[in-house]
Amino acid sequence: MDEPAVQPTDIADARRRTAGHLRVTPVVHTSAGELGLPYPVTLKLELLQHTGSFKPRGAFNRILAAAEAGEIGPAGLIAASGGNHGAAVAFAAQRLGYPAEVFVPSASPVMKRERITSFGATVRVIDGLFDDAYAAALERQAATGAVMIHPFDHVDVVAGQGTLAAELDEQLPGYDTLLVATGGGGFTAGQAAWVRDQHRVVSVEPLTSRCLHAAMAAGEPAPVTVAGLASDSLGCRQIGDIAWSVVRRYVDEAVLVTDHDIRSAQQAMWQQFRLVVEPGGATALAALRSGAYTPDAGERVVVVVCGSNCDPTSVL
Amino acid sequence: MDEPAVQPTDIADARRRTAGHLRVTPVVHTSAGELGLPYPVTLKLELLQHTGSFKPRGAFNRILAAAEAGEIGPAGLIAASGGNHGAAVAFAAQRLGYPAEVFVPSASPVMKRERITSFGATVRVIDGLFDDAYAAALERQAATGAVMIHPFDHVDVVAGQGTLAAELDEQLPGYDTLLVATGGGGFTAGQAAWVRDQHRVVSVEPLTSRCLHAAMAAGEPAPVTVAGLASDSLGCRQIGDIAWSVVRRYVDEAVLVTDHDIRSAQQAMWQQFRLVVEPGGATALAALRSGAYTPDAGERVVVVVCGSNCDPTSVL
Repeated sequence: MDEPAVQPTDIADARRRTAGHLRVTPVVHTSAGELGLPYPVTLKLELLQHTGSFKPRGAFNRILAAAEAGEIGPAGLIAASGGNHGAAVAFAAQRLGYPAEVFVPSASPVMKRERITSFGATVRVIDGLFDDAYAAALERQAATGAVMIHPFDHVDVVAGQGTLAAELDEQLPGYDTLLVATGGGGFTAGQAAWVRDQHRVVSVEPLTSRCLHAAMAAGEPAPVTVAGLASDSLGCRQIGDIAWSVVRRYVDEAVLVTDHDIRSAQQAMWQQFRLVVEPGGATALAALRSGAYTPDAGERVVVVVCGSNCDPTSVL
Repeated sequence: MDEPAVQPTDIADARRRTAGHLRVTPVVHTSAGELGLPYPVTLKLELLQHTGSFKPRGAFNRILAAAEAGEIGPAGLIAASGGNHGAAVAFAAQRLGYPAEVFVPSASPVMKRERITSFGATVRVIDGLFDDAYAAALERQAATGAVMIHPFDHVDVVAGQGTLAAELDEQLPGYDTLLVATGGGGFTAGQAAWVRDQHRVVSVEPLTSRCLHAAMAAGEPAPVTVAGLASDSLGCRQIGDIAWSVVRRYVDEAVLVTDHDIRSAQQAMWQQFRLVVEPGGATALAALRSGAYTPDAGERVVVVVCGSNCDPTSVL
């Protein structure tokens, strides 16, 4: 088996590079009985990260590494995303003083587009879905020479996401299991690349958007159809190659949850923590509440709550 | 000058007594430029406490101390509150297995009443404002013998609130200044009773609800009128005597903010942290953003974000 494309040293580099640009997001411990779980868990509140999701971890690392390599020209940065990645690239570009163009699919919510614009990026709306926006961004990149910031399939993006697991080891050394939601695999791979065999990593996907689960079943990246409540943040047709090189070795288990489980987890987070959690952000918790993953007695579980960008009335 | 009615030993007792019943709420650090402030601050996210406000700290300590003293009979607990205190008493009563009756003024929002009911307490709606509900609760208490859990004017309630400052000393030893919102004075007094002269304590009140400010001006508790955005949580006509005995000695400064400042702070917390903060919970932050309190260069400021119970659409 080939070496994983992302090594712990890449993540250590990412931490050094991104220090001062990212928030250290806090953890909070529940008691047995809370959130519908008969055991305590630790919540890693990554939804308090800049722009309301984990995405700035990867975006900052990718952009700062490109800047170190002298790769960023006058055209600045370009990305395709209908949501959290687009906001993160726009935010990082603004902080670091680069122009940015973000191609968003027409299917993405107006609220998310406005958020990208609010960070000073130029938004181009493309008819269709993510793939259409990405194709348009590639075409534009060929003309402008801007640096493409891929949402997940790049070593520096994956390494940046992994700074969460590195940070968590300082906050809670010796935990047993990390539950993370998987979209294109970059976030999960980042954690797994750091954690390796030191803790368990459990991937959680919606039944209707399961590219990691499908890859594990097929033994290689395999296409899936994408739908459902969390598809604006987790919907991905095929796991990234870089992510797969890590995930196939270091993800211990891949479980699935329903949209009903996800909505119920969102509601529990509002009712019991007064946190607005978007569907993708509540997906990992949903795996515990639904029984898709049941820890052993005494297993110390950390649930990453990784995004908050949704209409707050949807969680009531 | 008389000794303060609440001593650090009372707070140490409260910590021991309430351990396991309260959440250790996390802190998060901002960078210069965030939240409209040209300097970094630390946010103590007390809005993540059970029931969405700091109130369970005082309620649990008061109820557990009464239980230790064998004071709680079959009628259980009684309280008057239209909001956060009522929810905290109902929550603590449910967790500890006592019946509870909560008298709420008809002016209080239906949402807050429903929250109290959701924790299993009996809600009695009384025509009028807090004072009317409190009078009805006292009358009922005389008939039933239930233990009255006052929202702020009781040593065990104030000592319970002070567990926040004690907890914070472990999270962030050596900070300089604690900014807290003041309602009836119990929360602020709890912090001041722990902090004493070790750090600075700054009280923040709305211009339209300023019982601590008025007491400091008069040199003794003095009545004020109450109105404005935060009056559902901070509105109090006169500071409590127990709180005053602490506050007059250990609160370093009392500043005022407008409703506009408060709403603006709520919006900044949503936009930049995706946290739904109620008006009273955003009042301390408002003092920094408005310039009502300006720290010295290098002063390490902690802002307590103490409540989240409001309509989330109001912070957008």
